[in-house]
Amino acid sequence: MSEQVTQPADPTLESLRRRLVEFAAARSWEPFHTPKNLAAALSVEAGELLEIFQWLTPEQAASVMSDRESAHRVRDEVADVLAYLLQFCTTLGVDPLEALAAKIERNELRFPAPGAKPAPQPDVNPGVGDPPM
Amino acid sequence: MSEQVTQPADPTLESLRRRLVEFAAARSWEPFHTPKNLAAALSVEAGELLEIFQWLTPEQAASVMSDRESAHRVRDEVADVLAYLLQFCTTLGVDPLEALAAKIERNELRFPAPGAKPAPQPDVNPGVGDPPM
Amino acid sequence: MSEQVTQPADPTLESLRRRLVEFAAARSWEPFHTPKNLAAALSVEAGELLEIFQWLTPEQAASVMSDRESAHRVRDEVADVLAYLLQFCTTLGVDPLEALAAKIERNELRFPAPGAKPAPQPDVNPGVGDPPM
Amino acid sequence: MSEQVTQPADPTLESLRRRLVEFAAARSWEPFHTPKNLAAALSVEAGELLEIFQWLTPEQAASVMSDRESAHRVRDEVADVLAYLLQFCTTLGVDPLEALAAKIERNELRFPAPGAKPAPQPDVNPGVGDPPM
Repeated sequence: MSEQVTQPADPTLESLRRRLVEFAAARSWEPFHTPKNLAAALSVEAGELLEIFQWLTPEQAASVMSDRESAHRVRDEVADVLAYLLQFCTTLGVDPLEALAAKIERNELRFPAPGAKPAPQPDVNPGVGDPPM
Repeated sequence: MSEQVTQPADPTLESLRRRLVEFAAARSWEPFHTPKNLAAALSVEAGELLEIFQWLTPEQAASVMSDRESAHRVRDEVADVLAYLLQFCTTLGVDPLEALAAKIERNELRFPAPGAKPAPQPDVNPGVGDPPM
Repeated sequence: MSEQVTQPADPTLESLRRRLVEFAAARSWEPFHTPKNLAAALSVEAGELLEIFQWLTPEQAASVMSDRESAHRVRDEVADVLAYLLQFCTTLGVDPLEALAAKIERNELRFPAPGAKPAPQPDVNPGVGDPPM
Repeated sequence: MSEQVTQPADPTLESLRRRLVEFAAARSWEPFHTPKNLAAALSVEAGELLEIFQWLTPEQAASVMSDRESAHRVRDEVADVLAYLLQFCTTLGVDPLEALAAKIERNELRFPAPGAKPAPQPDVNPGVGDPPM
């Protein structure tokens, strides 16, 4: 069982992606892992991450990792979001690192840094989410 | 400007995380990047990814990458989700790869694969999301 | 205590909205009920409703109310979504019924029913969500 | 066409629910309106409402209705959330007002108001979302 092989101390995104593929295969969960179901699950988990913060003041939110239980919950939800994102990408053959690199490049053109030489502004799709305002 | 340095052809998660940090710093966007705001933004972007699939049949969803425009939209939303996840992790000092590796290990105990030697079942928190049923 | 007054058998949206206002006031929860927090909470609860359906086939989803426990969970999440929507509207002085009536009218112009006399197409914002395709 | 009948100035939730049923029927959109699709659409729209607030300070968020364009956007997203909630309830035969009334009653027992006579604490499901802390 590949699952029981000792894992490297310093995992890469690709090695984790493969472990998730094997994990689902070993449990015959692939039929559930359609792109639509995984997009829904990703959104649900992102909501669970947000839930931790919904009533917190900015100060409370900033110190959330100093409470052992909250810290565990945050890491747990981060793991879930990343797991479903990787599984989603696997079903559709999307490379998430390439997608993000390409997006950052588009955003460097869309939102030139103050003091940077003005870049030509191509007609591109919206950027890293929306600009933070 | 670090942004204009040629980027490696094969980015790692960590190199992209650092580019996002520099991107935000060069635009003085850090004040917006609180954990709560970033958790909200992550959830919003996960919703935008789901929006692509909301009315599609399973067949339409499975072939979404064969349409050039939909494929771009999917990659764009994947990039947004990953960007906000990395920025969120940066603000709180969470290592997303470690978090996911730890979660997969917990889930291998919680959901033993059929045919695997039964594992001791510790009292752990819920697994990679919920099991897919 | 208004909370202990017998409630009418057939509540209106407005009477429930007022009970929620009194409920929060009696517990001094108003400071938490900012528009941003309530929008986050609404989104979290909508995610919890979606969670019930995320791995279900269309057939399983359609019969979710025939299981007593699932039916309770669905009604519970519907109540949460509606509660936070009403509380959100209260903080900003939005009348949700008026907002929906206005939107339906805009959508009747945007998406003329087949067989209806073509309506003039004003330049309006997107409709009841997006059209279902 | 019922859609073209003059609408009452003061709509009720039930009259709007019926208009949405007729609206979808007149466009043959019912096949898309499965519980799962509508739960996804509701979640997507709640995300769009949250998007308006994601980078705002509490002060900016509180005055969002004083800007004409933001006010329109808020009302528009409130309408979308309510529309999909009503359509979701229609497909499953859930009465949202009854569900909310029942939930408020459960919450009055779960979270006794300070100064109220202590209520017996039955073993109930979690309340109007979670308590705001």
